[in-house]
Amino acid sequence: MSIRIGIYGYGNLGRGVVSAIKQNPDMSLSAIFTRRDPSSLKINDPAIRVLRAEEAETMVDEIDVMILCGGSATDLPVQTPALSRLFNCVDSFDNHSRIPEHFAAVDEAASQTGHVTLISCGWDPGMFSLNRLYASAILPEGNDYTFWGKGISQGHSDAIRRIEGVVDARQYTIPIEDAINSVRNGENPVLTAGQKHTRECYVVVEDGADKARIENEIKTMPAYFADYNTTVHFISAEELKANHSAIYHGGVVIRSGKTGNGNNHVIEYSLKLDSNPEFTSSVLVSCARAAYRLKNDGAKGCKTMLDIPPAYLSAAPAEELRKKLL
Amino acid sequence: MSIRIGIYGYGNLGRGVVSAIKQNPDMSLSAIFTRRDPSSLKINDPAIRVLRAEEAETMVDEIDVMILCGGSATDLPVQTPALSRLFNCVDSFDNHSRIPEHFAAVDEAASQTGHVTLISCGWDPGMFSLNRLYASAILPEGNDYTFWGKGISQGHSDAIRRIEGVVDARQYTIPIEDAINSVRNGENPVLTAGQKHTRECYVVVEDGADKARIENEIKTMPAYFADYNTTVHFISAEELKANHSAIYHGGVVIRSGKTGNGNNHVIEYSLKLDSNPEFTSSVLVSCARAAYRLKNDGAKGCKTMLDIPPAYLSAAPAEELRKKLL
Repeated sequence: MSIRIGIYGYGNLGRGVVSAIKQNPDMSLSAIFTRRDPSSLKINDPAIRVLRAEEAETMVDEIDVMILCGGSATDLPVQTPALSRLFNCVDSFDNHSRIPEHFAAVDEAASQTGHVTLISCGWDPGMFSLNRLYASAILPEGNDYTFWGKGISQGHSDAIRRIEGVVDARQYTIPIEDAINSVRNGENPVLTAGQKHTRECYVVVEDGADKARIENEIKTMPAYFADYNTTVHFISAEELKANHSAIYHGGVVIRSGKTGNGNNHVIEYSLKLDSNPEFTSSVLVSCARAAYRLKNDGAKGCKTMLDIPPAYLSAAPAEELRKKLL
Repeated sequence: MSIRIGIYGYGNLGRGVVSAIKQNPDMSLSAIFTRRDPSSLKINDPAIRVLRAEEAETMVDEIDVMILCGGSATDLPVQTPALSRLFNCVDSFDNHSRIPEHFAAVDEAASQTGHVTLISCGWDPGMFSLNRLYASAILPEGNDYTFWGKGISQGHSDAIRRIEGVVDARQYTIPIEDAINSVRNGENPVLTAGQKHTRECYVVVEDGADKARIENEIKTMPAYFADYNTTVHFISAEELKANHSAIYHGGVVIRSGKTGNGNNHVIEYSLKLDSNPEFTSSVLVSCARAAYRLKNDGAKGCKTMLDIPPAYLSAAPAEELRKKLL
């Protein structure tokens, strides 16, 4: 009996979930739900059922876990609580500062209806969070450092796009290697935001736009760019598409801490990802397995990866994990 | 109310546990148990109670979790099952091939008496195992690589000491940087044991010993050295003590795997430890907290780090973890 998965939302993440399910023989895809016209989705597999989003509630008996693949800005704050009343769910809500309120809303919905929903699954939040947790639990006296990139930041790209005269933009977050090395060497540096990352922007503007003004608006934008060494390149729409459509990303979490009589320890977790959405999708699928098992244990309510017994993420039986991985 | 810890066995690990408890305000040390004469232990804190090992059973009401700090060869296979009948326990049993039988013996004892015992806590087994698990659950199609070092291997040092004419020895396991880099680059190399590590031996011999024979016996020793590029240095006892008493260690776990249409991902976890035993002790102490919480949840029997909800390792409340680390 496989774990029957539903996919709610079909963008990059949803496509990644379709392909991740194929790598997990204990899972099967029941249906994809979309707000678009189902016939408009390009899926090269006639066996996959595509339904309208509103039809989800007719499928409660055919789906063990719904994986929500919408965006964190407007989709998930509404969809995850709503769907948690019908299904066990998994989402990748990544608006860090709003996680507590998202948790509360989902917990209420899932608890009332006896479902388990895992929120904020992915790599940050997700695997990076887990590594911050493990490292700080082991080394209570120490400092945490997270570096992201090189990779595209959606939020910073969007911020540039909102500037008048800008047609499109991509913003790369680039970690500063010297800063990483100082942390790796156990130097416990105090680093400002701008001492950890630089920001590189590729911007397409309207014909005749005032590039000097746009460059200045970018570089002085508070929070997003003002505190960073920011580089702006004006390029054509064709060049943007050809050279800056990559969805690779990555980063590193480091904790440097002391024990005993001044002994230093450095714990480092790093990711180098060819496809940011496909990796996130792969995390979501392993979390769907955990949600299914937690539900079978009698759990209910909202959980995060910080609550999941690690073995629940794996398809392998506990004895095999102990024998081969422990 | 703090979590009351007992320490059973007082070598490097036990000393590390004493100092780790001081970094965790939610814990307190109830007593140290030793097979030696309690008055012979050098502990610079008169408030710490030191008792004979046989007195442990008189302390069942004053200890929430007993941390076992004996060796894996002969101590823990006997002590962990025996003490699991009296206490919730944590050990660092690290004989990988015998984990299943150790698990079975401990599980029987702890289940019968309603205790929770966590075995094989540390970094390998332990944090490295967890990282192998997480990475393989996320990327089912991929390869795992573990590199150890640079650091001293107790087992290999012992093997050299058993050779006739050898007085003392230290063996460093050294990872081969080119092999690590090939893995990091996603090349998924097939590596023999000898292509992953070299072995460097510092050996003190008896006066007039046949160094050529000893060097040959080391280099041709099956399993331990024959398959590796092995270097042997003959040094004096003074030099061994002065230059080769370091207890630093470390290593790296890497998984390289593919998703979708050939996208590669590299997950890497690495440790650089000034003190191998102190780091292991710090893991043991965080696992003691988890054992205490699992017991309070009504769990019983033998568990490993693969079973622990990560948040249980941390002193911080769940809301704070979600807010600050997720």
